[in-house]
Amino acid sequence: MIITLTTDFGLRDPFVGVMKGRILERAPAASVVDLSHDILAHWPAEAGFWLAHCHQYFPAGTLHVAVVDPGVGTARAIAMVELADQVFLAPDNGLLAPVLVGHPRARCWHLEPSQFSRLGIGRASATFHGRDIFAPLAAELATGRVTVAEVGRSVDELVPGWVDEAIVTAEQASGVVITIDHFGNLISNIEGAAIERWVEPHVYVGALVLPLRRTYGEAKPGTALALINSFGVVEIAVAEGRASDVLGLSRGAPIVVRDSVRKR
Amino acid sequence: MIITLTTDFGLRDPFVGVMKGRILERAPAASVVDLSHDILAHWPAEAGFWLAHCHQYFPAGTLHVAVVDPGVGTARAIAMVELADQVFLAPDNGLLAPVLVGHPRARCWHLEPSQFSRLGIGRASATFHGRDIFAPLAAELATGRVTVAEVGRSVDELVPGWVDEAIVTAEQASGVVITIDHFGNLISNIEGAAIERWVEPHVYVGALVLPLRRTYGEAKPGTALALINSFGVVEIAVAEGRASDVLGLSRGAPIVVRDSVRKR
Amino acid sequence: MIITLTTDFGLRDPFVGVMKGRILERAPAASVVDLSHDILAHWPAEAGFWLAHCHQYFPAGTLHVAVVDPGVGTARAIAMVELADQVFLAPDNGLLAPVLVGHPRARCWHLEPSQFSRLGIGRASATFHGRDIFAPLAAELATGRVTVAEVGRSVDELVPGWVDEAIVTAEQASGVVITIDHFGNLISNIEGAAIERWVEPHVYVGALVLPLRRTYGEAKPGTALALINSFGVVEIAVAEGRASDVLGLSRGAPIVVRDSVRKR
Repeated sequence: MIITLTTDFGLRDPFVGVMKGRILERAPAASVVDLSHDILAHWPAEAGFWLAHCHQYFPAGTLHVAVVDPGVGTARAIAMVELADQVFLAPDNGLLAPVLVGHPRARCWHLEPSQFSRLGIGRASATFHGRDIFAPLAAELATGRVTVAEVGRSVDELVPGWVDEAIVTAEQASGVVITIDHFGNLISNIEGAAIERWVEPHVYVGALVLPLRRTYGEAKPGTALALINSFGVVEIAVAEGRASDVLGLSRGAPIVVRDSVRKR
Repeated sequence: MIITLTTDFGLRDPFVGVMKGRILERAPAASVVDLSHDILAHWPAEAGFWLAHCHQYFPAGTLHVAVVDPGVGTARAIAMVELADQVFLAPDNGLLAPVLVGHPRARCWHLEPSQFSRLGIGRASATFHGRDIFAPLAAELATGRVTVAEVGRSVDELVPGWVDEAIVTAEQASGVVITIDHFGNLISNIEGAAIERWVEPHVYVGALVLPLRRTYGEAKPGTALALINSFGVVEIAVAEGRASDVLGLSRGAPIVVRDSVRKR
Repeated sequence: MIITLTTDFGLRDPFVGVMKGRILERAPAASVVDLSHDILAHWPAEAGFWLAHCHQYFPAGTLHVAVVDPGVGTARAIAMVELADQVFLAPDNGLLAPVLVGHPRARCWHLEPSQFSRLGIGRASATFHGRDIFAPLAAELATGRVTVAEVGRSVDELVPGWVDEAIVTAEQASGVVITIDHFGNLISNIEGAAIERWVEPHVYVGALVLPLRRTYGEAKPGTALALINSFGVVEIAVAEGRASDVLGLSRGAPIVVRDSVRKR
């Protein structure tokens, strides 16, 4: 059984290690996989984006825990989502909104605080619910000792996302830079599937207009290019360089794709 | 069986991976958990602090390995400690002193170099005892093939810590900043338990006097606050900011808590 | 069964986590160990160097995956190497050349694209072969469901390395700085074994001539020293400092060792 972790805790302190201790105490056979611990603290949309685009590479039964939680200690609920035979746990602060897109049959719950004692959760700290609530909850669910339905209250919807989904019409797709990767590539929330039948898609970003390429190698070193990346979304790169530095753009910057042929 | 690792090796080189290789070679079923690999090389007190405040989140039988070892290759001993049904291994250089506090029945050993061949430890390098001694020792102990008593010589005490424990009287607790976390929070070595019955505790740090709050949300963005953090110690934070940058303080800076009511 | 990973993906994005998901989906019992994810993107020699000097610390049967792949999406082959009862997978771009040195009986293959369907590899993305090809290939090999010989075509040699191996004569060894570690130490590709019988080896680096020492402690704080490090190669360090900063040298800088006695 696999449990993935996505947080803004970083790896320099033992916060993530302590979560793993509490998980393995209750689920000794779990394989705990780090997705990312460098999510921006005030940009939970990044965590939701990555979960939405990574969960399909994990087997059925995987449980994903995401803790980017500016509201820890306040009255925000804990969300539990079931879709694609996987379970997602996160604060109900908009983080999971991108995961729900395209999954109309996803089921959503709020964790019932009245179930804490059943889960063996004692008094939680005010500031570290990852360790005190999410870790034991994940372990109890992953081992099958409890089910989401047993400890949750079904809800019709979750808190909406912090960033609007991309808006796609027949001739234009408008989104934003949702994350910047290790290589400085600007990764947008525009799905390549939405534009795959377009004839001559061009990407408008900053002051540039870029034709859509297939691989990084199709542009000269130092020049910008746009492509559908390996996670299926529109990405802006600079061949052998860092697009974020060269273009001076960051999270939230608008990106628009237009089909030149249709537009004429 | 869980083995945790705490080092100053960083994660960019394969040093930690190689330690895991040697552990898994002898203990294939072990779950190896990284606590931190970013301990400051010349501040082993940080490693001891985190072990003292993290081990309780791991199950009985967990074995903790900490290698922050400016004296590697010199005559310093290797310390082994048993407390709370867990085992701690580290160079005997003061690192484990914080773990012993409050555990008068902890038992301490020095590893006997004469036991190296029994442990299958060949000629150790002069500079990487983490791989050459600690990893095989941890694996042999974790699998139960040897016990601490079999390979160690009982000692009455270990080398004292590099940083004094906080001094607590009826009306004042004096400590220092022991670590700065990923969020820039200044974490002290003053236990919240020592001051929990005080009426109006105030924290003196740099030029500031701060009342003790319960959560980060109780201060206005950009202003400093003090609280008992999720590890039970006094912490200085800046709401939605980095206290280490805003206050210009770092490890070793003094922190004092006084009970205003008693003081009057 | 152990699978190690060495990449230039960094740890801030979920790229490594997604590779682990695909590995564990097919090989749930695998222990996946991170060697390094901070290899310089345009310096695959670093990955090969570390694999050549780390694999002996892993048990027989270990499978090593290295993905530093500036040519991803082009026609470069995927190399598979068997030596010392272990398997190495990497793009055939010179990365594995250092691993082959000193192993004349190593066997080399190119993965046959015609075997993709047998491996359950669907349409691979143009830019993330780590997830789409290497992860499933590693899992199928590690579980023993297929063998290297079944999915590969035997080849006589691989693409040569990006950096020449050190040149060693009776009185001189010439190499380069191959990597800089977390502590700022300059690590060369000159094997200590080549010079171990020399009487008074001196190391020439930048404007310095340094005698060979045994441990870091043998030099005064702030001064440079040379030693054979724990991986058996010549290393330049600065006692209690960072050699890379103090000496202003980086990867590729030449290092020469001469035996003063012989030279006279």
